[in-house]
Amino acid sequence: MNKIYIRKQNSPLLQDVLNLMNTIKDIQNSASLLGWDQETYMPSGSVHPRANQLVTLETIAHRLITSKKARILADKIESHIGNSNEFVNGIYRTFLKEHKLAAKLPQKFVQKFTKAKTYAIESWKKARQANNYKLFENDFDYLTNLKIEQANYYGFSENPYDALIDIYEPGMTHSFLKPYFEIIKKKTIDLLDFALGLSSVINDDFLFNYYDCDIQFKIAKQICDKMGFDFYYGRLDKSIHPFTTSFSRRDVRLTVRVLENDIRSSIYSAIHEAGHGLYEQNICDEYYRTFLEEGSSMGIHESQSLLWEKIIARSLEFSNWLFPLLKENFPTQLNNVSSLEFFKAINKISKSFIRTESDELTYNLHIILRFELENDLLNKKIKVRDIPEIWNHKFYESLGLMPLTMKEGCLQDIHWAHGSFGYFPTYTLGKIYSAMFWNKIQSDIPDVFKHIENGFFIPIKNWLRDNVHQYGKLYEPKALIKMLTGKIFDVDDYHLYIQSKLSSLNK
Amino acid sequence: MNKIYIRKQNSPLLQDVLNLMNTIKDIQNSASLLGWDQETYMPSGSVHPRANQLVTLETIAHRLITSKKARILADKIESHIGNSNEFVNGIYRTFLKEHKLAAKLPQKFVQKFTKAKTYAIESWKKARQANNYKLFENDFDYLTNLKIEQANYYGFSENPYDALIDIYEPGMTHSFLKPYFEIIKKKTIDLLDFALGLSSVINDDFLFNYYDCDIQFKIAKQICDKMGFDFYYGRLDKSIHPFTTSFSRRDVRLTVRVLENDIRSSIYSAIHEAGHGLYEQNICDEYYRTFLEEGSSMGIHESQSLLWEKIIARSLEFSNWLFPLLKENFPTQLNNVSSLEFFKAINKISKSFIRTESDELTYNLHIILRFELENDLLNKKIKVRDIPEIWNHKFYESLGLMPLTMKEGCLQDIHWAHGSFGYFPTYTLGKIYSAMFWNKIQSDIPDVFKHIENGFFIPIKNWLRDNVHQYGKLYEPKALIKMLTGKIFDVDDYHLYIQSKLSSLNK
Repeated sequence: MNKIYIRKQNSPLLQDVLNLMNTIKDIQNSASLLGWDQETYMPSGSVHPRANQLVTLETIAHRLITSKKARILADKIESHIGNSNEFVNGIYRTFLKEHKLAAKLPQKFVQKFTKAKTYAIESWKKARQANNYKLFENDFDYLTNLKIEQANYYGFSENPYDALIDIYEPGMTHSFLKPYFEIIKKKTIDLLDFALGLSSVINDDFLFNYYDCDIQFKIAKQICDKMGFDFYYGRLDKSIHPFTTSFSRRDVRLTVRVLENDIRSSIYSAIHEAGHGLYEQNICDEYYRTFLEEGSSMGIHESQSLLWEKIIARSLEFSNWLFPLLKENFPTQLNNVSSLEFFKAINKISKSFIRTESDELTYNLHIILRFELENDLLNKKIKVRDIPEIWNHKFYESLGLMPLTMKEGCLQDIHWAHGSFGYFPTYTLGKIYSAMFWNKIQSDIPDVFKHIENGFFIPIKNWLRDNVHQYGKLYEPKALIKMLTGKIFDVDDYHLYIQSKLSSLNK
Repeated sequence: MNKIYIRKQNSPLLQDVLNLMNTIKDIQNSASLLGWDQETYMPSGSVHPRANQLVTLETIAHRLITSKKARILADKIESHIGNSNEFVNGIYRTFLKEHKLAAKLPQKFVQKFTKAKTYAIESWKKARQANNYKLFENDFDYLTNLKIEQANYYGFSENPYDALIDIYEPGMTHSFLKPYFEIIKKKTIDLLDFALGLSSVINDDFLFNYYDCDIQFKIAKQICDKMGFDFYYGRLDKSIHPFTTSFSRRDVRLTVRVLENDIRSSIYSAIHEAGHGLYEQNICDEYYRTFLEEGSSMGIHESQSLLWEKIIARSLEFSNWLFPLLKENFPTQLNNVSSLEFFKAINKISKSFIRTESDELTYNLHIILRFELENDLLNKKIKVRDIPEIWNHKFYESLGLMPLTMKEGCLQDIHWAHGSFGYFPTYTLGKIYSAMFWNKIQSDIPDVFKHIENGFFIPIKNWLRDNVHQYGKLYEPKALIKMLTGKIFDVDDYHLYIQSKLSSLNK
């Protein structure tokens, strides 16, 4: 094994693949920076040049991965794959996958799609602000058609949606997810009245006092630091929509939403994004500038953010650690509040419009609504122009609330403007995976709750690094989960977790 | 002429050149964004990936402009140039120049230089902060040798410095500049005692009161807006080192330095950068994504920023307009001050360490010092490791002050870390050009001072747009200046201007 390792490491084939991959990865990371800039600092008037710049970079990357040289390398790889060590196999597997997928797309399509996406993000911003869906409708319709076109290029056996889900969660399909999502939906609705009853006696008014934004931001930074996020290779900024992006494991950028009248937003969005950030920062150094330098899948990525944000940070033990820190900074606002009361308040179940602000139980209802809509759109069962009406109708059916504005309705998320159909289900997958991982962590680190209560997160951070993060994209999600938990897919862990969370609110 | 115009506009040759140029320009603009990001938001630890990304983008751009396709186009252009309309000639001329220059550089050199520059910027930051030249010395030495190598690749008849000055000011040479700079130095020193005497009775204490930074920033933005800077296609941010950068005329970014104890910094750095910004924003729309979508030269660029910052904004009439606005916002700080007193205070001549904060008279001494050092470095008359000592010695000789820290000495500017040898002389050229332009403006707009006093800057903005900005890089600096002023190069306008400024302080 060792011998093969050394031989393969130095093989001219591997070197050629790595050289090409490095160049493509540099271009992709540069394009990501242009995208990050569009969402943070770019002036509104410069969509047109930005679209051109992105089209040029994406075209060059596409040309390189589908070039004659890449084809020759791909042919050679076919006869080598599986015979090498894990790193080399991972490099070859991801190269082949990217090559084959890209080769299915005509260059013209890549250019059209990149341009359409760049414009759609801007019209979504405008439509959202003006509460006017019409401003987004045309771009969204065009983008939806392009996504159907893309699914057709990629090919699928049952459902065009599968071809797109696969981008974010390799191997996952609509027909696999549907029954699980239906069970989750049913169980959630079954639990909802009970959970709302429990919650009705929980006072959370103090969460909505006035909290100085700069102090909140300082605390958010402290927490990320405590979790082990490395600021030498990363940053934390304020933004309207919290997100994480990286241009290598040494440049990982988080943003948080800071609201002066809701302390939850900054704290838990920081923890969520730091969960993503830790994943990116702890990918094995050897994977630098390769296709392995990213998460296994978006489901696995969301499992990391949600594990930290929901399971760890909303536990009683974490609250016992966090609350004194908050109280020290906001003595007046948190006067007469105990950490148990704080714990209950941040876990209070309630019906709400905004996905990112929803509680642990109702969160999945938000996701499943989007999952159903995406499937219907891609299968042409519904029309883009009818989305606002259908959204409101389905939302009312599922959560009993009627959105009054687009911002709290179908224009709340940026995902569709990115053309990211198939991304939403990975959030619920992330919840499912995180519960599976959490069981394993509890058995591997028996004192985990004691550590959390002491604000000592290193054991968790290291466990995640050693078992998930370091591997980057080396393993596909199914293989990684199997390796870690011995299981393939298990929704029960999630159900048991949520039930135990609800009972803890009854204390 | 018209017939040629139409034929050329649609010629396949022009189309091929434009297509290639568009792609190269997109890559260059993307690389500029990566550079901007390095100076604003990039985490310190990510220099290594950023260097790789920049090397990849610069390599692709270099490969495209020196490709076989580009060579064939260049050969065809040689027989067409001069026969077409101005736009087409401009496109051909700039394409040929870029092609020929790039073809002189081996790809390996481009990669080495891009990497060296990216690292040098970081070590300069560290050295500056730690007041330790040693931290920068090695990178600076390596970069200096690369610049000598670059000058040798480009070729020169007299002095390697000429090959580098030409990058920023086409056609300009050391031997042309030297006698003019010596005259300026002599005249400045001759005037200095008189000017310091005049200034000794000027009270400027109130400039250094406490001024709220947010209010200062708001005023800076108002002024840029008044000058005609278009925020739909641009932004203004705070930074430690004010600068302007653009990624097309529709994405122009200015930064200002805001100091709580010096009101001058935010106001005049904003005006300076807005002067650059107006140039970029007003380049003809047809030049979009071509090599014409930039300024004629850096000297012309600096003439725009300095015209606004020094000549217009430090006039009595501008002060009469600005002062009430300042007083409205800072009534306590400016209590008992008149706009005449304000005018005198902001024009007070004094010896100072920092180039960007120096007054109109001594400014050139700062430039000439750098001009002499650059020339000596490139001709190997002095060594990089001796720069701090030589700097301090020469600075004392010229301004009678001895820098105590590197920050107020040889590490104050970022230019050398960028490898931008040959850039500094363009500041003094900018001063010379701006005085020449200003005479023309005064004769073309007889009421110009009245307009300034009323805060009505549109006539100036439009004059600059119609006579300078719109042309972008269509004309070389000499041709542009000749066209505008009827003269080629005239230092007298500058001397007369500075003398009249000094007498106005005597009022």
